[in-house]
Amino acid sequence: MTTRLVVIGGTAAGMSAASQARRQRGPDDLEIVALERGADTSYAACGIPYWVGGAVDERDQLVARAPEVFRSKQSIDVRIRTEATSIDLDARTVVARDLASGTEEQLGFDHLLVATGASPVRPPVPGIDADGVFGVQTLDDGQALLDALEQRRPQRATVIGAGYIGLEMAEAMILRGIEVDLVEQLPRPMATIDADLGDRIAEALREMGIKLHLGVGAEAIETGDDGWVRSVVTSDGELAADLVVLGTGAKPESRLAADAGLPTGARGGLVVDRRQRTPVDGVWAAGDCTQVFHRVTQAPTAIALGTIANKQGRIAGINLGGGYATFPGVLGTAVTKVCGLEIARTGLGEQEARDAGFVPVCSTVRSSTRAAYYPGARSVTIKVIAERHTGRLLGAQIISEEGGAKRIDVFAMALWNGIDVQELAYVDLSYAPPFSPVWDPVLIAARKAADAVAADEV
Amino acid sequence: MTTRLVVIGGTAAGMSAASQARRQRGPDDLEIVALERGADTSYAACGIPYWVGGAVDERDQLVARAPEVFRSKQSIDVRIRTEATSIDLDARTVVARDLASGTEEQLGFDHLLVATGASPVRPPVPGIDADGVFGVQTLDDGQALLDALEQRRPQRATVIGAGYIGLEMAEAMILRGIEVDLVEQLPRPMATIDADLGDRIAEALREMGIKLHLGVGAEAIETGDDGWVRSVVTSDGELAADLVVLGTGAKPESRLAADAGLPTGARGGLVVDRRQRTPVDGVWAAGDCTQVFHRVTQAPTAIALGTIANKQGRIAGINLGGGYATFPGVLGTAVTKVCGLEIARTGLGEQEARDAGFVPVCSTVRSSTRAAYYPGARSVTIKVIAERHTGRLLGAQIISEEGGAKRIDVFAMALWNGIDVQELAYVDLSYAPPFSPVWDPVLIAARKAADAVAADEV
Repeated sequence: MTTRLVVIGGTAAGMSAASQARRQRGPDDLEIVALERGADTSYAACGIPYWVGGAVDERDQLVARAPEVFRSKQSIDVRIRTEATSIDLDARTVVARDLASGTEEQLGFDHLLVATGASPVRPPVPGIDADGVFGVQTLDDGQALLDALEQRRPQRATVIGAGYIGLEMAEAMILRGIEVDLVEQLPRPMATIDADLGDRIAEALREMGIKLHLGVGAEAIETGDDGWVRSVVTSDGELAADLVVLGTGAKPESRLAADAGLPTGARGGLVVDRRQRTPVDGVWAAGDCTQVFHRVTQAPTAIALGTIANKQGRIAGINLGGGYATFPGVLGTAVTKVCGLEIARTGLGEQEARDAGFVPVCSTVRSSTRAAYYPGARSVTIKVIAERHTGRLLGAQIISEEGGAKRIDVFAMALWNGIDVQELAYVDLSYAPPFSPVWDPVLIAARKAADAVAADEV
Repeated sequence: MTTRLVVIGGTAAGMSAASQARRQRGPDDLEIVALERGADTSYAACGIPYWVGGAVDERDQLVARAPEVFRSKQSIDVRIRTEATSIDLDARTVVARDLASGTEEQLGFDHLLVATGASPVRPPVPGIDADGVFGVQTLDDGQALLDALEQRRPQRATVIGAGYIGLEMAEAMILRGIEVDLVEQLPRPMATIDADLGDRIAEALREMGIKLHLGVGAEAIETGDDGWVRSVVTSDGELAADLVVLGTGAKPESRLAADAGLPTGARGGLVVDRRQRTPVDGVWAAGDCTQVFHRVTQAPTAIALGTIANKQGRIAGINLGGGYATFPGVLGTAVTKVCGLEIARTGLGEQEARDAGFVPVCSTVRSSTRAAYYPGARSVTIKVIAERHTGRLLGAQIISEEGGAKRIDVFAMALWNGIDVQELAYVDLSYAPPFSPVWDPVLIAARKAADAVAADEV
């Protein structure tokens, strides 16, 4: 008998899972219906700032696989512009609303995959829902923003929040020739990077012409007579703004599933086991809407990131299809490039380590992306967070000119199964003058951390 | 009472050890005499091809620390142009000859560190010692070659051997406007890279204008009336040559120590324990002249590479100075860039794995250095060598356009403590469009390898 899988959310996690399930079970065995609120499937949301900024020309370039391809090649019944409005776990049904016609349909399921993603954190200030205030989660969001740029020719934009997306969007606006005010409640941009490295980031943003308002809260968004945003009132005065972009981060979009009775945990993420199963038999969840296990803190957290969503989707799909796979957890690895600066992290920052109960010993080194004498050598700064006494690696952060930040993956790999900085300092990494100094910056950073751990013993 | 350390060889391993020993013990406690046959100390031999090719302007740029700096800052009695001609392990003396004056001096030692490096393999063909035949081990070698370029304005050069140095030197000659014939006995260049990837390398060399003679042996070097090289006779005919460069690899230069009675092992490298001790009390060895433990084969080998020499030197210096440190072994990691192609490897190649007794399962994937839609995305090809049944990672090789090869370090780190490709496929590596596709090429390669291991079970 044919069983039916209903997938709610047709982007990274949802369509990875659907594809994977299809690879294992044919259409006669498994019917797959995927509901997607937006117009696109399987797109690279992380690419939106580059599309808005102009480095990527076309919306379609961000789409890994279009709905019609899923339909024709994989017999997946993808329904775009269709929103799941409720889930009944007892009746095992989902209500799907066609957003154009308003028609609703009740769909029965044998398996349900919740992959509803994340939604931008909207600060609870008056006017936050006004016209001209943009989130950047979906291609539709990006399109709306680009349409506004085209139609309204804004001169000034305010970006609220200086996290990854906030910084990338601030840069995108600058590249479009728009003046940018960046408002951040915390005293520094990119709070996921430790304060001692964060100064370099602020400097790079200022050099690019972004006006930083740090330690400043957005208090209200004012609109003009046409209802379009006109200014942002902050704790430090009013900023004229033809456009507001929310860079205040994202949180798991788990409301629909939670309303149906599925439990949520860290940061509101849906609780799943290692196979992406929720506690309800046949009901699965994957991607930004779930919580994930952090391998260093050994506690759940939630992280909205495409690469994690894809991995979880794949795991869910394998299991859904009758296979066996487990998601091994995350390290909190992330990288970005803003205003010519590469910024990366993995594991725990200094304060995060303390919050998790560790006593961290930290050290920071400055080195070079290539042999110092080799053309194109650039400065790279690495902070290593190690555990007191043991020297166990807890995390690393990198601020680099071009060509340094991807080294974070070596730290991530080192963290994966655990290593002491004393040992990390002598790992056989590759060396040639166009690629690194004779001691790779990773090794130098580990050695200095080992020295710091030893000095801490005295 | 002051004890004396005599160091034979004043480059990577020797001076790392001397510096490290000095950091731990003051001049009143430990006298350090370092003997160096050449004119320089602590230089980047790996940078010589870039100096010869013109990317690096000055010889001095390759010198990390000059003899006078060691003398003045660290009270290390560096004697350049001074060769150790014999060691008496019973009398605990070394004979040092001043190469300019011919004067010999007998030096007693309490500790002796042998760091005599590697010497280029000189194929046993007639004329191999003729004028105009150059090795590329020392700055003096590089200088001699540059002097010849200046004085003789050669039109054609033959490079014998297509290993790392051979390829880098062939490119350097091309950059100097010289026609290059590259002669290699094996059927492909860069034999340390598996044949299926090696084709791309040959293609890149040809595109750069290098004439490849593969499967061709050099049989004799002919000289003109002035005694300078005139041509290279090969198994496939005679090649006119105004210059010959040896790229035939290097072997441990252990003769002096072996003559004194120190045991040698793999490839003629001196036998040392994990603390860099030879079997003779107070006699140490480090760098290219030693054998090293390979963590994947669990057997000794010998690898001439500056980064390993520096690490071993540091370990030796710590132990010499009364501290405690052990060298953890190598993975055979290496990287180079030739003719626009980045080439890297770690662990075992397919045949090496078989030779070591493994049954390898291999897979190769092509991916992209950045998100495909992000400007500057380049092609990267990765081969993964895994163990049958277990999926244990045994090695990886990368051929890449700009920006891909340093990912070899992630594989190296993964190999370090052992991981299965099944697990490697889900490691939390960093992702952002300027840095990688949503599945990093490392993860894609591991996943395909895991698929290959699974398919092999059927």
